[in-house]
Amino acid sequence: MGINRRKISVIGAGFTGATTALMTAQKELGDVVLVDVPGMEDPTKGKALDMLEATPVEGSDVNITGTSNYEDTAGSDVVVITAGIARKPGMSRDDLVNTNANIMKSVTRQVVNHSPECCIIVLTNPADAMTYAVYKESGFPKNRVIGQSGVLDTARFQTFVSQELGISVEDIQGFVLGGHGDDMVPLIRYSNAGGVPLTKLLSEDRIDAIVERTRKGGGEIVGLLGSGSAYYAPAASLTKMVEAIVKDKKRVLPSIAYLEGEYGESDLYLGVPTIIGGNGMERIIELDLTEEEQAALSKSVSSVRSVMEALPEE
Amino acid sequence: MGINRRKISVIGAGFTGATTALMTAQKELGDVVLVDVPGMEDPTKGKALDMLEATPVEGSDVNITGTSNYEDTAGSDVVVITAGIARKPGMSRDDLVNTNANIMKSVTRQVVNHSPECCIIVLTNPADAMTYAVYKESGFPKNRVIGQSGVLDTARFQTFVSQELGISVEDIQGFVLGGHGDDMVPLIRYSNAGGVPLTKLLSEDRIDAIVERTRKGGGEIVGLLGSGSAYYAPAASLTKMVEAIVKDKKRVLPSIAYLEGEYGESDLYLGVPTIIGGNGMERIIELDLTEEEQAALSKSVSSVRSVMEALPEE
Amino acid sequence: MGINRRKISVIGAGFTGATTALMTAQKELGDVVLVDVPGMEDPTKGKALDMLEATPVEGSDVNITGTSNYEDTAGSDVVVITAGIARKPGMSRDDLVNTNANIMKSVTRQVVNHSPECCIIVLTNPADAMTYAVYKESGFPKNRVIGQSGVLDTARFQTFVSQELGISVEDIQGFVLGGHGDDMVPLIRYSNAGGVPLTKLLSEDRIDAIVERTRKGGGEIVGLLGSGSAYYAPAASLTKMVEAIVKDKKRVLPSIAYLEGEYGESDLYLGVPTIIGGNGMERIIELDLTEEEQAALSKSVSSVRSVMEALPEE
Amino acid sequence: MGINRRKISVIGAGFTGATTALMTAQKELGDVVLVDVPGMEDPTKGKALDMLEATPVEGSDVNITGTSNYEDTAGSDVVVITAGIARKPGMSRDDLVNTNANIMKSVTRQVVNHSPECCIIVLTNPADAMTYAVYKESGFPKNRVIGQSGVLDTARFQTFVSQELGISVEDIQGFVLGGHGDDMVPLIRYSNAGGVPLTKLLSEDRIDAIVERTRKGGGEIVGLLGSGSAYYAPAASLTKMVEAIVKDKKRVLPSIAYLEGEYGESDLYLGVPTIIGGNGMERIIELDLTEEEQAALSKSVSSVRSVMEALPEE
Repeated sequence: MGINRRKISVIGAGFTGATTALMTAQKELGDVVLVDVPGMEDPTKGKALDMLEATPVEGSDVNITGTSNYEDTAGSDVVVITAGIARKPGMSRDDLVNTNANIMKSVTRQVVNHSPECCIIVLTNPADAMTYAVYKESGFPKNRVIGQSGVLDTARFQTFVSQELGISVEDIQGFVLGGHGDDMVPLIRYSNAGGVPLTKLLSEDRIDAIVERTRKGGGEIVGLLGSGSAYYAPAASLTKMVEAIVKDKKRVLPSIAYLEGEYGESDLYLGVPTIIGGNGMERIIELDLTEEEQAALSKSVSSVRSVMEALPEE
Repeated sequence: MGINRRKISVIGAGFTGATTALMTAQKELGDVVLVDVPGMEDPTKGKALDMLEATPVEGSDVNITGTSNYEDTAGSDVVVITAGIARKPGMSRDDLVNTNANIMKSVTRQVVNHSPECCIIVLTNPADAMTYAVYKESGFPKNRVIGQSGVLDTARFQTFVSQELGISVEDIQGFVLGGHGDDMVPLIRYSNAGGVPLTKLLSEDRIDAIVERTRKGGGEIVGLLGSGSAYYAPAASLTKMVEAIVKDKKRVLPSIAYLEGEYGESDLYLGVPTIIGGNGMERIIELDLTEEEQAALSKSVSSVRSVMEALPEE
Repeated sequence: MGINRRKISVIGAGFTGATTALMTAQKELGDVVLVDVPGMEDPTKGKALDMLEATPVEGSDVNITGTSNYEDTAGSDVVVITAGIARKPGMSRDDLVNTNANIMKSVTRQVVNHSPECCIIVLTNPADAMTYAVYKESGFPKNRVIGQSGVLDTARFQTFVSQELGISVEDIQGFVLGGHGDDMVPLIRYSNAGGVPLTKLLSEDRIDAIVERTRKGGGEIVGLLGSGSAYYAPAASLTKMVEAIVKDKKRVLPSIAYLEGEYGESDLYLGVPTIIGGNGMERIIELDLTEEEQAALSKSVSSVRSVMEALPEE
Repeated sequence: MGINRRKISVIGAGFTGATTALMTAQKELGDVVLVDVPGMEDPTKGKALDMLEATPVEGSDVNITGTSNYEDTAGSDVVVITAGIARKPGMSRDDLVNTNANIMKSVTRQVVNHSPECCIIVLTNPADAMTYAVYKESGFPKNRVIGQSGVLDTARFQTFVSQELGISVEDIQGFVLGGHGDDMVPLIRYSNAGGVPLTKLLSEDRIDAIVERTRKGGGEIVGLLGSGSAYYAPAASLTKMVEAIVKDKKRVLPSIAYLEGEYGESDLYLGVPTIIGGNGMERIIELDLTEEEQAALSKSVSSVRSVMEALPEE
């Protein structure tokens, strides 16, 4: 009885997590709980309070709380996981996977404990393997555990095409499959500007250059920043996924979804086109692939499976 | 020195004109002047005042004025023409064309006189011929005179596909060429849901049915309403075009544009894909057509030319 | 499990009802059901379809349905009642009250039957008495039945002050008690521009003129339109109330609320300052009144009670 | 001829500057240029690119550029100055004032050189003195140079009252005069919730506590964060001022404005209620103060004048 606001928790109060909390609050999608480890409780509270003090300016009626206590996340509709460490110089990929997988397990246990009906969106790298780890630990049905990578890759692709053509970002459509970065499988034949296939508007050379820049998009930002990595566009991408769920929009978004036979794979989390709505990942859209695309996807799958081997035993 | 609000004038204060004024004001695109003939001055003032009284609720700082005096439109950035009569029972098409063309001439003279730098968007039916008449009378370059029909047709198509597939309206892309209604040339191969071609998601039968429903979309509303015709979606479509100009968005929108060789035609206003930005119609996008599409477009062209023959001599 | 969109039903598909449906959909507040009597089913469906066809342009993922069947309203979160007749020439006030009260009863029975947990907002005139009739028929607790009048009066007051001072509508605060129109009790000492009391910014004469214009605000529009009455600002006002509930915003809005001792009155629906949130009318704010204000309020109360005498026996 | 987007430059690409650029872009207010010193050019480009890559997700058609070259700011409509150093341990206040004043001079020369018609908004601390320094260096008329402090103080006050009362942030009105922090002069009698004076809703004790918390609002965030200071609410406050100018909204906002006799002071920049619109600071609103308020304001003025003494000779 009565209408309660939606509730969104963001685990990890680093730049991406904090910016996701901000954007979620700006859109008035629901009350926001920003969570970090006990040692970071005060800064987390500080960021949340600073954001809250922006709500009168935005006219947004949501509460924003900083905490290290998962009890504060109780009853969340959506939980976004950005927690985890970044790869440090000298750290092996397996060490990274192992460390972050253990963080995923610990976070997931607490999330699930307090919000047994929530949808979880995973950002932590490497996202395919981490989403798999969260899924296994959560015991949730597959529709309620997804990962982000394709929305961001697509946004970068759209940006570069928009700049190249001098055309509104609202009218550029990109389309990617598979993993992030080098493992990204762009489906150029499904990419267009206002419906017009990109191949009619750009030379093969220019398209190749844009695809390559998209692949290296994260690295380009890291290179410019000098320290740290991108967080504005990643946070906007996560917020778009949250909005699709909270408003039950049934959006066609690339997401890291659990495959049970789709695209010829099983027991794997992989970036594929999905419908995102009030039930989370409501549907996987299967496409026929050309031989070349299939080859690229297989390469992407191998890469993800190889990372998954580094996941700790359960 | 100093920043002035943009100014948008809407000629014709019927349902479509008034709703366009409302939506333009809701989006805070600029001050709005709603114009109708002297005999309708008071009702026009009444509608404008009623809308103005909604601005505090919307938080929108724009002025909205009702008038029959074109001096009040002076210095408009964009002028939308919705004035004109609807076809009455027993009225020949040529009579309609003749009457509305004369209205266009009179309106255009006054618009141009007070806003020599504006962009004009024409809605009045039959829109292809009426946009031509406005262009000729205005003496404006072709980029500053365009007509609306395809944005609305596309919106209807998107609606029907969205409902059929249970997919967000934000992810459906339609694409039409040529005239309105029966003369509409849908380019299904450029239509998609989130980038996925419709042909992969819907059977040919269902697509045909949706195309047919789109063609008859105006009539479907007329039939249901009993008296009068659609105005919500037409007004939203006009407002989208106004926004693209006022915000210099460079959107890919189908619009009725002046052809000088594009698509093999000249001295003709026809619905084609265009880039709409701060300079109005900034570019026509030319596409290769299949034989079937070319045939449909030729039929559409014939139809428009035949209507144009009914335009009064200058 | 899973998130469903909110659902808002609007009873009465006249201009105000239809425009309320439109604005609710534009703000993506939830799915919208527009209801009218069986004889108007087709036009109602036509209006709803026309609005739905605007959603792709607005990027709003909500369904909009026209119907005469209350089953379609099942499970609504909020129901707005705009149904009823307008006073016709020669019709006594008591006849109007009687007719509309019977409409309220019939509508309420069906609304309550299908949406036993909804909040009801009543617009039908005379709104104080009609809200009372709906309350009695519904059997709902008082927090879930409210009426609109003050949001609209305030919006008009804000508009006139904004125009007079050349100050943003976002910064004008008005404040009214009591009934609509002649019975409105403006609390000028609580009205301000950006916090600055109006009495510091405007002469008493100008304030009096603005108050008088606000009182006659509905009549001013009727006079200009010639036929029909205001619907843009009324619809925006209703939508603001719907939004406050659906987003649980806890807004301070004047609404027609059930008094149980507040302001010295009981068993009466009267316009008073309230907090509107997810539970509907969550709180009445009681203010000390000056003698003059108390006298004006008493006059307003008498007027409402006199109208209520014309309500049909239960 | 043709409509160009507005252009906003933000000088200083630290957290507040970058977040202001982000929020300005999110609201599609115009193209954004983010400027920092040559040594920070790459990180500035990185932040701008990361933001730009979020625009497709937001549907916002603006360009965002990072640069160290003021030529890229040419023709800006609004320039926001956030550049400057923070006070370091052991640094005297006079050293801070001196260092930042020299930064203001250098920045202003370059800003004015390339955008002779712009409005400048200064955030750099101590804001009153820094705005004065920019004014003197710019040679601009007083309406085109203002400083920020009161919008942020007010936002914090609104937040705390909203939380205390459980009332929408949209309905809390705060009102401050004078300097930032300890020098802030809150005008409680002009503060209200939905028009209802705070003094009717909160005890004097609670109001005092909220005022005190507002005064220390910046310090509270600094204390929680451990390192660094608030930037979300400051950036939102700056963006609100930019929006008021770019949309010519005529908002009543507290801003640091140049006094020529108002409030009994001259040749001084001080926080006072102003109207902000397309011409920048269009009007100062003068209020009668109580003796107590006047005393507090005098103290604030002394404090500002004492800081100004530390400004370097011209």
